[in-house]
Amino acid sequence: MATQETTSAPATEQPPSGGGFSRRTLFQGAGAGLAVGAAGGVLARGATVPEQHAAPSLGAARIEFQGPHQAGIVQPPQARVQLAAFDLAPNAGRAGLQALLKLWSQTAARLAVGEPAGTHENQIALDAGPSSLTVTVGFGATLFDKVGLADRRPAQLNPLPAFPLDAIDRSRSDGDLWVQIGADDALVAFHALRVLQQQAAPAAAVRWQMAGFARSPGATAKPMTGRNLMGQVDGTNNPKPTDPDFAAKIFATGPDWMAGGSYVVLRRIRMLLDDWENLSTDRQERFIGRRKSDGAPLSGGTETTPVDLTKQNPDGTLAIPADAHIRVAAPTANGGAAMLRRGFSYADGVLPDGSPDAGLLFLAFQADPARGFVPVQQKLARGDGLSRFLRHEASGLYAVPRGVQGGEGYLGQALLEG
Amino acid sequence: MATQETTSAPATEQPPSGGGFSRRTLFQGAGAGLAVGAAGGVLARGATVPEQHAAPSLGAARIEFQGPHQAGIVQPPQARVQLAAFDLAPNAGRAGLQALLKLWSQTAARLAVGEPAGTHENQIALDAGPSSLTVTVGFGATLFDKVGLADRRPAQLNPLPAFPLDAIDRSRSDGDLWVQIGADDALVAFHALRVLQQQAAPAAAVRWQMAGFARSPGATAKPMTGRNLMGQVDGTNNPKPTDPDFAAKIFATGPDWMAGGSYVVLRRIRMLLDDWENLSTDRQERFIGRRKSDGAPLSGGTETTPVDLTKQNPDGTLAIPADAHIRVAAPTANGGAAMLRRGFSYADGVLPDGSPDAGLLFLAFQADPARGFVPVQQKLARGDGLSRFLRHEASGLYAVPRGVQGGEGYLGQALLEG
Repeated sequence: MATQETTSAPATEQPPSGGGFSRRTLFQGAGAGLAVGAAGGVLARGATVPEQHAAPSLGAARIEFQGPHQAGIVQPPQARVQLAAFDLAPNAGRAGLQALLKLWSQTAARLAVGEPAGTHENQIALDAGPSSLTVTVGFGATLFDKVGLADRRPAQLNPLPAFPLDAIDRSRSDGDLWVQIGADDALVAFHALRVLQQQAAPAAAVRWQMAGFARSPGATAKPMTGRNLMGQVDGTNNPKPTDPDFAAKIFATGPDWMAGGSYVVLRRIRMLLDDWENLSTDRQERFIGRRKSDGAPLSGGTETTPVDLTKQNPDGTLAIPADAHIRVAAPTANGGAAMLRRGFSYADGVLPDGSPDAGLLFLAFQADPARGFVPVQQKLARGDGLSRFLRHEASGLYAVPRGVQGGEGYLGQALLEG
Repeated sequence: MATQETTSAPATEQPPSGGGFSRRTLFQGAGAGLAVGAAGGVLARGATVPEQHAAPSLGAARIEFQGPHQAGIVQPPQARVQLAAFDLAPNAGRAGLQALLKLWSQTAARLAVGEPAGTHENQIALDAGPSSLTVTVGFGATLFDKVGLADRRPAQLNPLPAFPLDAIDRSRSDGDLWVQIGADDALVAFHALRVLQQQAAPAAAVRWQMAGFARSPGATAKPMTGRNLMGQVDGTNNPKPTDPDFAAKIFATGPDWMAGGSYVVLRRIRMLLDDWENLSTDRQERFIGRRKSDGAPLSGGTETTPVDLTKQNPDGTLAIPADAHIRVAAPTANGGAAMLRRGFSYADGVLPDGSPDAGLLFLAFQADPARGFVPVQQKLARGDGLSRFLRHEASGLYAVPRGVQGGEGYLGQALLEG
């Protein structure tokens, strides 16, 4: 059986699965943009496509739902994302949550292979393939009290501290349940959201919803790290599934039901693009610490050259300035803190003052936020020159239970029945 | 030279252009979703890609800027659209508008072939190809007064009448200048918007902005008419560039500067999806007049079978009900009124009441709105059963001048210098 561990490992091939029909799995590392098959076709990343002469297509690409970890963590961002939080109805209780998670798990599995889900009445994306759809579900801290499981709420879900410069709108933050839907087709992603929403009623209702995007597969001539709306290469130093300590950094080992799970931090980060674009390229690059053109660190080399934080310019100044983003965020400056970033851009029109309502839907997965997002953000909010061009406007922290596999029937089963 | 007329003609091939390097042009009819090359690769539609063994890719696909008509009219919708209206500053005058249109025309031409435009400071989509980018520019009725050309404002720009059920927000409607940016990569589209916006200052500022989406190339196994967020096949009976009267219906013949131009109507139409999805499929289909699964008319056949409005069910009722959308909107019911629809879906989260802020960015091009959108919408707003599930929340009408070709240097030159 293909697992997400193996389907996400770069540059490795595995034999056809023992499933209903033979498939070939195409591999690609996190952060890369596309995989090009032998026939020159453009294929979605980290995805399985039918073997045997079938024209490779974006629509046919699929990502396995089952596995030790949920789908939508180690795979690079799809072209489109829908994020939503749901709040449980007061009378839903543990039984209501259980029924909902069963339904969502079935739906996620069906949609991942292109089978219809939901009622016929709300079919939207008929005739499209799964388009690398993933559905990822998380539990907010508030969920546990509501279903009588307060004593099993992990300490990792303790509220994030307030950070300097935060401007958090709580109505677009938090939530009992969190869903991340990624797909390379916008209609497929929207349809999945509508089905999950319909299935949630009346046990749970949408608290907030956000849409984002990343590069379309094939937009660049070769696989590239993505760029954010500041135009900067973003994600170069992301942990890779091939790193020896990847699993230890990203996946939790316990409690029982979270073994193989992860904790995701969401931040809706508006970028003050009007101010940013008024800076010279040189100034932009020194705020980041990397060249805009190719993402190479200002200490020299290419995008993937290790950053040399001690490197000096001929005039004795630091090549990577003291307040550069990559210096302040460096794992070495944060006790080895690491997280797997899986961000999407958003662009939701203009605000009343005429500035763009646009920026980054920052998502980061980690084994423990106290050794990932929290220490890094505490430093960034104080010392990062980039911070003055950013506004954190929404925030969330969710426990993403392990994937469905083996004898388990649905996401969160070990919590609800354990 | 490839022109938009020819590049948009379905199932026709043309010899390599005499341009700087040899290209092969791939063709596809309006409304279709993708073209698959001989190598099985997925290619953007209506687009030119480098010949010679180069792997076909979404990013490399390009749509010619020059031509008798502007790009972004006859080509099927790209995966992503950014729409924006700009208002001219009081002191910009005709000279300011002229400088702006020169700059925008140069920029549109450069971005269409993947060359950088704007300052380096606001580069965002570095390393992506043009991804079938098109930039389409229109003039609102209010523009003409502001630049001393009130006497040259075409009668076709007379305000649209108010329609029953309209709920128009004027702050998201109208505007002196209108821009439609389409691309198969969201970052490419957003970057183009930012460049145009930066170049507009201080002569013009954004009045409103909206983002939308259509199918990603390759999402369906074969080319399909698109679906809207109601899940319905939408655009089946769109005029086709091969229709003998296509040009007469869609493109204006005058006045001078509008010969080859078109008039575009924009309606932001919110769909009451919660209500819609509570209907049975049967009821949904009778509101539309077509089967949901494949778009076939309820009078029988397949999607492309001509609609038989007289067909009766065994019980004597009309197969296509009296208030069905396709009956009320039929050209035969509206004196032959026709328009080229080029709609995109939008999904902007949830409204304060919890319902989705989602629907259709309806765009329709026509030679004369009085023989296109206006008579059809007058009938629809009264007699169309579908209307109760729709809210028209924004509206615009713009003169889209002819394309840049031959001796002309920029969009609107014949108006401003004529």
